[in-house]
Amino acid sequence: MFETQTINVDEVISETLPTRAFAAQSSTSQLALWNFERRAVGPRDVLIKIRYCGVCHTDIHFLKNDLGFSVYPLVPGHEIVGIVTRTGDLVKKFSEGDVVGVGCLVESCRTCANCKEGEEQYCLNGAVYTYNGIEKETGNITYGGYSSQVVVNEDFVLHVSDKLPLEKVAPLLCAGITTYSPLRRWNIGKNHRVAIVGLGGLGHMAVKFARSFGADVTLLSTSPLKEQDALALGANQFAVTTDDVQVQKLTGSFDFILDTICSQHDLNIYLGMLKTHGSLVYLGIDPAPSKIALVSMVFSGRTVAGSLIGGIAETQEMLNYCAEHNITSDVEIIDIKDINEAYVRMVNKDVKYRFVIDMATL
Amino acid sequence: MFETQTINVDEVISETLPTRAFAAQSSTSQLALWNFERRAVGPRDVLIKIRYCGVCHTDIHFLKNDLGFSVYPLVPGHEIVGIVTRTGDLVKKFSEGDVVGVGCLVESCRTCANCKEGEEQYCLNGAVYTYNGIEKETGNITYGGYSSQVVVNEDFVLHVSDKLPLEKVAPLLCAGITTYSPLRRWNIGKNHRVAIVGLGGLGHMAVKFARSFGADVTLLSTSPLKEQDALALGANQFAVTTDDVQVQKLTGSFDFILDTICSQHDLNIYLGMLKTHGSLVYLGIDPAPSKIALVSMVFSGRTVAGSLIGGIAETQEMLNYCAEHNITSDVEIIDIKDINEAYVRMVNKDVKYRFVIDMATL
Repeated sequence: MFETQTINVDEVISETLPTRAFAAQSSTSQLALWNFERRAVGPRDVLIKIRYCGVCHTDIHFLKNDLGFSVYPLVPGHEIVGIVTRTGDLVKKFSEGDVVGVGCLVESCRTCANCKEGEEQYCLNGAVYTYNGIEKETGNITYGGYSSQVVVNEDFVLHVSDKLPLEKVAPLLCAGITTYSPLRRWNIGKNHRVAIVGLGGLGHMAVKFARSFGADVTLLSTSPLKEQDALALGANQFAVTTDDVQVQKLTGSFDFILDTICSQHDLNIYLGMLKTHGSLVYLGIDPAPSKIALVSMVFSGRTVAGSLIGGIAETQEMLNYCAEHNITSDVEIIDIKDINEAYVRMVNKDVKYRFVIDMATL
Repeated sequence: MFETQTINVDEVISETLPTRAFAAQSSTSQLALWNFERRAVGPRDVLIKIRYCGVCHTDIHFLKNDLGFSVYPLVPGHEIVGIVTRTGDLVKKFSEGDVVGVGCLVESCRTCANCKEGEEQYCLNGAVYTYNGIEKETGNITYGGYSSQVVVNEDFVLHVSDKLPLEKVAPLLCAGITTYSPLRRWNIGKNHRVAIVGLGGLGHMAVKFARSFGADVTLLSTSPLKEQDALALGANQFAVTTDDVQVQKLTGSFDFILDTICSQHDLNIYLGMLKTHGSLVYLGIDPAPSKIALVSMVFSGRTVAGSLIGGIAETQEMLNYCAEHNITSDVEIIDIKDINEAYVRMVNKDVKYRFVIDMATL
C-alpha cells in the first residue's frame, strides 16, 4: 500500500506541465499563442503561476535574432512575478502562496569563481538564461515569462515583498537590478554628480536609484520632451545631448555616467562629460562595435566599463531595498494580445516606462 | 656699494640664457641644431645642465604633428636628467650640484581640484608640458630636453638618487611613471595575473614594475622574436597575439592588462583576455578612435581606462622606489647627431628599449 502510494506521488511530480505562452516561431514572425510542456517540478524546484511579466528591450533583440543565437519557438520574458503554486520535496526557502520573482537567470554552474562570489550572471561555464538558454535539468530550450507558469530551482527564485504593487515590481527583475548593480559597484552616493543617459525602462529606474542613494542626478536625452518627466522622476537637472551648447557646458562634469541606451550611439559625447577618473558604465547588448576616442580617455584618466544585470543575492538585496524605500517601476499594463503593438511602441520610444503584461489575459 | 651689488646680481639673474638644442622647424623636417634663449632663472627656478635625455615615441608624434597642435621650432624631450647649476633665491628643495630629473610637466595651475590632489598631469586649467606647452612665466613656447640646459620651477623638479646610472634613469621620467602609475592605481600585486602588451620603452618598464610588485606577468607581442627578451626582463610567460591558438587559450585570463602600444591596433583581442571585472589600461595618444566591442565588456563586466603619466609626487615616489629596488630602463645611448636615424629605428621597433641622448654630444 505504502509502496503504491509512493509510486503514485512520484508519477504526479514527474509529470510535465502543460503551459500556455506567447511565442515567436521565427525572427520575422509576431508573437502568438503557443502551448508547450514545462518540465516536471523537481525536488528543489518551485512552480510559479505568473501574474505579471515585464517587457524588456532584450526581448525584441532576441525575437529579431540581433545577437545571432536565437532559437525558435522563442518565448521571451525575464521580468517575472507570480505566486508559488507547488514546491519540490526539498525546497526550503519557499512555500505555496509566496509572492516571488524570477529575473534573467534560472541556473548556473554554481562551482566557478564567479558563481561562488554570487555573480551567477557572469558564470564562467555559462549561466542559464530564463529564455533561449539550455535547461540544465532537461537539455531543452528555456522558455520565458510570457507564459502561464514557470518551474525554477529555488536558488534562482527571489522573495518579493507584499508591500509593493506586484505589477510595478516585475521590471525590477531586469531593469531594476541592471541599474542598481553598477551604481552599487561604483559606490554612488552623496557628493557624486551622476548622469543617466536615456529615459526608458532602465533609465527611469537608474534615476530613482541614483537619487535614492543621494547622488545629484542629471538626465541626458536626445529629446527635449523628456525634461518634465525626468524632473518629475527625481532628476535634479536635465540636458539635451543634441544641443552642442548644453553638451559643451557639461564637459568634465560627472563622476559617473550610466548609459542605458540599447541601440547604437556615439559614446564620445558622454565620455567628454566625465570628470578626471570618472567612469561611464554601458549596459547595452548591441553587438556592433563602438568607436571610442581613447585619447580623450587617456588625457583625463577616464574609464568605460560594461555591466550585466546582477547576481541572485544582489537582486534580492535590490528587491529588499525597493520594498524598504518604496521604489518601483512606472508601468503601463497591457493585455498579452497587444504585445506586438507594444514592441512597435517600444521601438518608437513610446512607453512610460515599462510595459508589463497582465498574464491573467493569456 | 651694497646697493650697486644688489642691482648687479639682479641683472645677472634676469638675463636670458643662450641654449643649444636640436629642433624640428616643421612637421616634415629633420631635427637639427638650433640656438635659442631660455628664460632667466626666477626666484623659484632651478637651472639644470642636461646630461641625458630619453627619446619617447611622443616626441615623434609631436614632430610629425600627429595631434594637430605642434608649434615649430619644436624641441622635443621630456625624459630629462641633469645637474643643478644655479638656483633662484627662494629655492628650498635643491642646491647646486644636485642630480635631478624633469619629466613631461614643468608647471600647472596648482589651484584646481586635480592639482590639489597631486595630479598635475590632469590639471583642469591645462598643465604646461615640457615641450610644445606655453610657458607660464613668459608666454613663450616651452622647449624640451634635446637641449643643453633647462629652467624649471623647483616644484616640478625631481630628486634623483646617485645610486643609479643616470642614463638609465632618464626614461623613468616618462616611460617609468606612465607604467608605474596605473599599476599602482589598480593596486597590482601578488595574486594578480597581469599582461603587458608590447615590449618597447613603456612595455619593458611595465614588466619590471609589475614583477617587482609581485604580479604574475605575461608579455603579449605580435612578434615571436620578443620571447627571449621578455623572459629575460622578468616576464613569467610570453604569448604571440597573431597566433589565434595562443590568443584563444588566454581568454578570460588576466586581472589587468597594460596596453603600451602607441600605434593604432585592435584592442578587442586583449579585452577578451580579461577576467570578469578585469581592466585594460590604455596609454596611447593616437587620436584616431578605436572600435570596441562593448557587448563583450558587458557580458564580463570588463573595463577599459585611459591613464596619463603621473603627478609630481607620484613621480618622486616612483624614482625613490626605483632607487630602492634597483630598477632602471634598458637603454641604448646615442649621440644627438644620430637622433633622426634613431627615430627611424624606433618606428621600425628596433631599439632595446629606449634611446637616450648623451647631451654631452650636443
